[in-house]
Amino acid sequence: MTRTVIRGGLVITAAEEMHADVLIEGERVVALAAFGTSAAEGWTAERVIDARGLYVIPGGVDVHTHMELPFGGTAASDTFETGTRAAAWGGTTTIVDFAVQSIGASLRDGLDAWHAKAEGNCAIDYGFHMILADVNESSLKEMDLLVAEGVTSFKLFMAYPGVFYSDDGRILRAMQRGAENGGLTMMHAENGLAIDVLVEQALAAGKTDPRYHGEVRRELLEAEATHRAIKLAEVAGSPLYVVHVSASSAVAELASARDRGLNVFGETCPQYLFLSTDNLAEPGFEGAKYVCSTPLRPREHQAELWKGLRTNDLQVVSTDHCPFCFVGQKELGRGDFSKIPNGLPGVENRMDLLHQAVVDGHISRCRWIEIACATPARMFGLYPRKGTIAPGTDADIVLYDPAARQTLSAETHHMNVDYSAYEGKEITGRVRTVLSRGTVVVDGDAYLGRPGHGRYQPRATCQYLH
Amino acid sequence: MTRTVIRGGLVITAAEEMHADVLIEGERVVALAAFGTSAAEGWTAERVIDARGLYVIPGGVDVHTHMELPFGGTAASDTFETGTRAAAWGGTTTIVDFAVQSIGASLRDGLDAWHAKAEGNCAIDYGFHMILADVNESSLKEMDLLVAEGVTSFKLFMAYPGVFYSDDGRILRAMQRGAENGGLTMMHAENGLAIDVLVEQALAAGKTDPRYHGEVRRELLEAEATHRAIKLAEVAGSPLYVVHVSASSAVAELASARDRGLNVFGETCPQYLFLSTDNLAEPGFEGAKYVCSTPLRPREHQAELWKGLRTNDLQVVSTDHCPFCFVGQKELGRGDFSKIPNGLPGVENRMDLLHQAVVDGHISRCRWIEIACATPARMFGLYPRKGTIAPGTDADIVLYDPAARQTLSAETHHMNVDYSAYEGKEITGRVRTVLSRGTVVVDGDAYLGRPGHGRYQPRATCQYLH
Amino acid sequence: MTRTVIRGGLVITAAEEMHADVLIEGERVVALAAFGTSAAEGWTAERVIDARGLYVIPGGVDVHTHMELPFGGTAASDTFETGTRAAAWGGTTTIVDFAVQSIGASLRDGLDAWHAKAEGNCAIDYGFHMILADVNESSLKEMDLLVAEGVTSFKLFMAYPGVFYSDDGRILRAMQRGAENGGLTMMHAENGLAIDVLVEQALAAGKTDPRYHGEVRRELLEAEATHRAIKLAEVAGSPLYVVHVSASSAVAELASARDRGLNVFGETCPQYLFLSTDNLAEPGFEGAKYVCSTPLRPREHQAELWKGLRTNDLQVVSTDHCPFCFVGQKELGRGDFSKIPNGLPGVENRMDLLHQAVVDGHISRCRWIEIACATPARMFGLYPRKGTIAPGTDADIVLYDPAARQTLSAETHHMNVDYSAYEGKEITGRVRTVLSRGTVVVDGDAYLGRPGHGRYQPRATCQYLH
Amino acid sequence: MTRTVIRGGLVITAAEEMHADVLIEGERVVALAAFGTSAAEGWTAERVIDARGLYVIPGGVDVHTHMELPFGGTAASDTFETGTRAAAWGGTTTIVDFAVQSIGASLRDGLDAWHAKAEGNCAIDYGFHMILADVNESSLKEMDLLVAEGVTSFKLFMAYPGVFYSDDGRILRAMQRGAENGGLTMMHAENGLAIDVLVEQALAAGKTDPRYHGEVRRELLEAEATHRAIKLAEVAGSPLYVVHVSASSAVAELASARDRGLNVFGETCPQYLFLSTDNLAEPGFEGAKYVCSTPLRPREHQAELWKGLRTNDLQVVSTDHCPFCFVGQKELGRGDFSKIPNGLPGVENRMDLLHQAVVDGHISRCRWIEIACATPARMFGLYPRKGTIAPGTDADIVLYDPAARQTLSAETHHMNVDYSAYEGKEITGRVRTVLSRGTVVVDGDAYLGRPGHGRYQPRATCQYLH
Repeated sequence: MTRTVIRGGLVITAAEEMHADVLIEGERVVALAAFGTSAAEGWTAERVIDARGLYVIPGGVDVHTHMELPFGGTAASDTFETGTRAAAWGGTTTIVDFAVQSIGASLRDGLDAWHAKAEGNCAIDYGFHMILADVNESSLKEMDLLVAEGVTSFKLFMAYPGVFYSDDGRILRAMQRGAENGGLTMMHAENGLAIDVLVEQALAAGKTDPRYHGEVRRELLEAEATHRAIKLAEVAGSPLYVVHVSASSAVAELASARDRGLNVFGETCPQYLFLSTDNLAEPGFEGAKYVCSTPLRPREHQAELWKGLRTNDLQVVSTDHCPFCFVGQKELGRGDFSKIPNGLPGVENRMDLLHQAVVDGHISRCRWIEIACATPARMFGLYPRKGTIAPGTDADIVLYDPAARQTLSAETHHMNVDYSAYEGKEITGRVRTVLSRGTVVVDGDAYLGRPGHGRYQPRATCQYLH
Repeated sequence: MTRTVIRGGLVITAAEEMHADVLIEGERVVALAAFGTSAAEGWTAERVIDARGLYVIPGGVDVHTHMELPFGGTAASDTFETGTRAAAWGGTTTIVDFAVQSIGASLRDGLDAWHAKAEGNCAIDYGFHMILADVNESSLKEMDLLVAEGVTSFKLFMAYPGVFYSDDGRILRAMQRGAENGGLTMMHAENGLAIDVLVEQALAAGKTDPRYHGEVRRELLEAEATHRAIKLAEVAGSPLYVVHVSASSAVAELASARDRGLNVFGETCPQYLFLSTDNLAEPGFEGAKYVCSTPLRPREHQAELWKGLRTNDLQVVSTDHCPFCFVGQKELGRGDFSKIPNGLPGVENRMDLLHQAVVDGHISRCRWIEIACATPARMFGLYPRKGTIAPGTDADIVLYDPAARQTLSAETHHMNVDYSAYEGKEITGRVRTVLSRGTVVVDGDAYLGRPGHGRYQPRATCQYLH
Repeated sequence: MTRTVIRGGLVITAAEEMHADVLIEGERVVALAAFGTSAAEGWTAERVIDARGLYVIPGGVDVHTHMELPFGGTAASDTFETGTRAAAWGGTTTIVDFAVQSIGASLRDGLDAWHAKAEGNCAIDYGFHMILADVNESSLKEMDLLVAEGVTSFKLFMAYPGVFYSDDGRILRAMQRGAENGGLTMMHAENGLAIDVLVEQALAAGKTDPRYHGEVRRELLEAEATHRAIKLAEVAGSPLYVVHVSASSAVAELASARDRGLNVFGETCPQYLFLSTDNLAEPGFEGAKYVCSTPLRPREHQAELWKGLRTNDLQVVSTDHCPFCFVGQKELGRGDFSKIPNGLPGVENRMDLLHQAVVDGHISRCRWIEIACATPARMFGLYPRKGTIAPGTDADIVLYDPAARQTLSAETHHMNVDYSAYEGKEITGRVRTVLSRGTVVVDGDAYLGRPGHGRYQPRATCQYLH
Repeated sequence: MTRTVIRGGLVITAAEEMHADVLIEGERVVALAAFGTSAAEGWTAERVIDARGLYVIPGGVDVHTHMELPFGGTAASDTFETGTRAAAWGGTTTIVDFAVQSIGASLRDGLDAWHAKAEGNCAIDYGFHMILADVNESSLKEMDLLVAEGVTSFKLFMAYPGVFYSDDGRILRAMQRGAENGGLTMMHAENGLAIDVLVEQALAAGKTDPRYHGEVRRELLEAEATHRAIKLAEVAGSPLYVVHVSASSAVAELASARDRGLNVFGETCPQYLFLSTDNLAEPGFEGAKYVCSTPLRPREHQAELWKGLRTNDLQVVSTDHCPFCFVGQKELGRGDFSKIPNGLPGVENRMDLLHQAVVDGHISRCRWIEIACATPARMFGLYPRKGTIAPGTDADIVLYDPAARQTLSAETHHMNVDYSAYEGKEITGRVRTVLSRGTVVVDGDAYLGRPGHGRYQPRATCQYLH
């Protein structure tokens, strides 16, 4: 087995910062030793990576991506190949993507289809959640099988009637099943039935610009659905993970439930932390670039989301990466905001944007790793294989230069999409080197990875419950 | 330097569980390696400790003890010598005790006096908080000096008028000073002025038994003071650490403040988690054994405290170890509960009782270490030297046998007090071996430590702020 | 015009208690004068009613009745004739009953049908709310017409999928329409979709007894629906009146909304104040007598409901009078609690039960009149014609003997139903004489009224908004 | 006895609006009759007042005035003679002023002194609260005596250490006594000990302008004290009335306590509803005119106070009338805001300002009468003699012209103070005629009253408890 030593860096995990050298054998971390000690210096290795001046952090774990997702008559523009390569460039070494059940079809069919898309194409490791679009006796039973083979989380939608929407009875049944088999319920929490009324009324009133997307998807209706999901989970006796929380009042619902000791969790995304309805209101049709659901909120929500990340009322930052090109895709919604494909690119930017948050004082370094690596891994049963650096873990490691400067841009990013949601934004910090299971896949400006290096990761059930 | 290897155990920290061997050189941990790897097996050492079947955990950090404290005309029955030895027996390797300013005297005098009591006598490492009994221009200035020399936390009392009590103006001034110099304000949060009225009325009504101690110290008056301390800290812009929280409504005040993102922290103690007003009401004068302040609460508060520990609305479990013998000391309060010296023994029992909580399902193993070792160390500026096991930390390590059984009793405990608050309680789990800075001080039934091994630990300022 | 004087009683309204004589001319109160003054004594009248020792109160206004309601294959056992006569016996002089829209049919058809049932048959005055069972473009437009003719309140159901249930989109549309035309939205707030899952599961598990009716209709699901209705009303900008609140957690949702200044109102009923799940669990099939929805709750909810009535977080007590005979009707649900017709008799008992609450110290005398007469009248646009005694109001007046004793029983009540929900309950206080628009309809043990005396009351829009 | 009829007006009480004529005999209202009925038209009277186009409302009840109060080395500039005359001009017919206990002296001495100031001098009726400045065994006993003679409310201060301040122990004792004898505790809720620290620091930093008065008296410290007062009242089992609430967060504390069913009440004043810190920051020393405690708050608090008045979380609007002339009195604080006498004039403006609030849509007409007349009377045991118009009440009646326009100004007001806090403010509505116990004391521009017409009003205990 190849031995690699990463020498002289500051190892940062969710819990510790230590000046330590890291010894890798094959695909795994086997030892850490205090820098400069005879124990560390005694190590011999084929490869020694000089990490002086750098952070040595676990590879990012992005638990919310939608590669190649069919949506609104088109499909997300990143394939598993392009999307996971971009992820690697951005310091993310594991994604969990969403397989989709079609209405009338089985979970198995959906999962198989997603396996087929991903297999042999991924630059980094990957797993799957399952979207439950059609809750019925048969699909409920299939949930048990999926849990057994490592698909241990199931997403339901309170939004998108006629597409992914489940009514409260179906949601309750799915949650009850999850309570039994350990599957974690993930929820898109917006009251879609009410939103659709407001969409119809807005369009009828001639309000067709992208900014109305933000207006009709009322904050109150995210908070309401969040509250309702919590109550249904309480009835079912199941934990709950609310995806892409954007409204401060939804955070308040999570906080209240957590104060009562419930296993209720929340994820937010960089777009909600760094962008706002100001972007949706950009002139011309530019706002379409920022159309996603839950929608961007007024700027003052950002402080509440950062607060939620500090108080641990929000536990995870994922990307909800779901890119559509402006030309030809976002443009489908000219004259009718409801036709704009919902989604933003971001899988490459997350680790950098959150490091910027460290620089800006929003969060500490350890908290950066916790929300971007450790907790996502624990939440979805990948720990400690993923999400930390310790004896025995997978050698998914990023050497991060905290002093480098970069400017985010579609011209330089590696995602397969013709715009950046953060065009021109300056960032302090940059990925230097990325190892995936002991293999260097990015080194400075060189991409050394290959499609198929990434392996499917069956997952245990949620490890974050108390 | 002596090299020691701890081999084959399950290393548990606040964040990780790993089957790893631990290499110690002299007083420090220098490396961890995955069990069974060549990296681990290649280590040579003078001493190899077999940890198979055992937990390898950081030594406990007890941040609330009162050795030799003069109180109510008597003094706590454990000296630094006897108390720290008992701590070591119980798997605690660091205490932070309270030096006391006398009214009219300087902080310096108080601190010097406590240094004199401890120096050369301690079995394990120790630090000091400072009790501010007399906030004035001079003592406020002295706070800066103490912070500079590693006494970075200051305790104030809203209870005990005429003794330690500070009024709200003094509290505000001390908090403001702490906000500037980094000193953490610790608060005994009970409305002492109101309580004294109720004490007087109870005694006048012939209610003199120990159980009235629990009745007059009303839960509402703990919640009120907790709320007030939070508001004063908000005005001062300072963090706040509330000691010995016992009332569920006080936990609710902390939770509410934390939801708002404030740096407000809470500590509870084993007595509030395992004992109740039922004990205070034990027949005869037995209840006196359980007189402490804040008082024990009705049994239903326990569940709320456990919940607070799970939700991280409470962050620390310390002991408030302040033992008084039943004979001759507690008896001072026969016929007048207000004369019973306030305090319980516990420094030896904390790690075991909290492991029992793991067995009982209240908390996870990692959370056990977090509330008993890692967070106390961070909270009071001892991290990462204390509270965790990682390359570079002090080799304060406990080998803990999770399957052993023991019965708590005054007959077998090592604290210098004639009763146990947990007499007869059966515990699953037991300390096997204790290392303090690399030295084995307890090994099975043998005490191998000595007075003076323990060293004074100057502390950094709070490392737990966000 | 006939002149009547009521002399020597204690006139009690929601706001005042006064020793005053009341002068009636024809159908209206024309003057009040302080007892014993020359102004009072100067009145001449055809009829003088001696009210010494009695309360002189406004006739009760019961805004929630279901006479002759078809439900579950049977129909409520009181007709408008028998039900309004019983109401009069119990001191209630106005009811507002629910006309029902059939699915697929117009509001007009439903309203006409209910007019036909009531006209010429009522002993006392009556009005109508409209149940919206089928919200669509056509029925939304009809709402405006109904408001214009005095049907100014519309009931929606979050429960009973497939029967009265409206989804959130329909509810939002109806609320928006109400916000424009002044129609007040009344809501049955239970999450019916979730409840139906639990019903199915309970029956499948062999839980068929009446008490399971109370178990499956979970308190959490009443609280959830209440919260959701509030949020939808906020989005619509409409007021909201929640009917038959039974859960303390639902009261908490109302209180929270009201603290924020929203026009959100709540009604409870005597059955929730005086009965509990203990009744549902009565042996044999006796529990069926107490099956209604929302269901009876555990006894401890009663104190919270009384508190809500005192704090004005609940504003109205109505009966939800919907009687089904035990024999032949309730019995339809033997072996399947979901087949028990939902509803209780009560229109005759409300004023007495609430007077008992005055005697028991739950509420004051003025509050009794406020929740039973004045606020219901204001809430539904009948004020000041109904609900108070003042110059110009309808002479709907009850002389109430606060010292009389009676025992509630099916043997003596006048409702057309074979059991009493309060069989054997002893009450202090009793109706002596009832005037409806100046006509004595009950006098002691004599019924002097007639079918057709009662007139349809077109109503103004809600007069209780701030 | 003289008979007076007020004919053709719209009688407005807290509960009703009625087109009714009012018959007065001597000092009392004896009858109301519907306008135009034979009952009304049959009345003969010495005096008939034409009220067509006018409101006929109860005279205002101002329960918070400080005539001739010694404060800060000077005294409030209105005597009982000038102040009550100005009150009459403004439509207020009853005041409750504060007698003051001197430290070391008895309640009796204080009360006698205030009786001496008022007797023979008042234009309208008056009562007294008692300020408890020195809570001790003797003054606690005296409370019972005062309650017996109609002084049924006692004010305590959490502010002003060294002057009126009571510590929490004294407050608790006084509340306990009130719980026994029915005396209502009124509280000035600001944390004076903390504020004094901030005052000292501000002055030391050269912050001496009036606006710093608003800054140092932090909102948090009003909220804190309000919370604490509530908890102490809970411990004592006593009701609580918080005076001059100005902070929205204090309203939230009251709302929360009231949701829990506690008898906790709050009063605000016109200055908090219409003025703000903008006024305190007026250039030059103009801000001094607006110095009062609690202080004016930022403008956004106003909406929350109005909301509190609508939700009944605030029940009373009084004036806290305590005028000091700008010249020679307010000027005492040039160069040191802490020396500015605390207080504003307002007794003449309250009824008009609150009518303006009706015009502006903040409150309804009935609510205007409720917060300004009926509830103050009930709260302090004057009901139904004062605060409403009904058979048997005192004939304290105001004819109010809702369409008249006026401009508030020191040039036209009748208070003995050289400025108006509302100079130049335009008001819709104006007092036309004022009757005090049947005597016309103001009629258009003519003052017909006299010193000594006003009589001392012994009061019952609080009539607003539930």
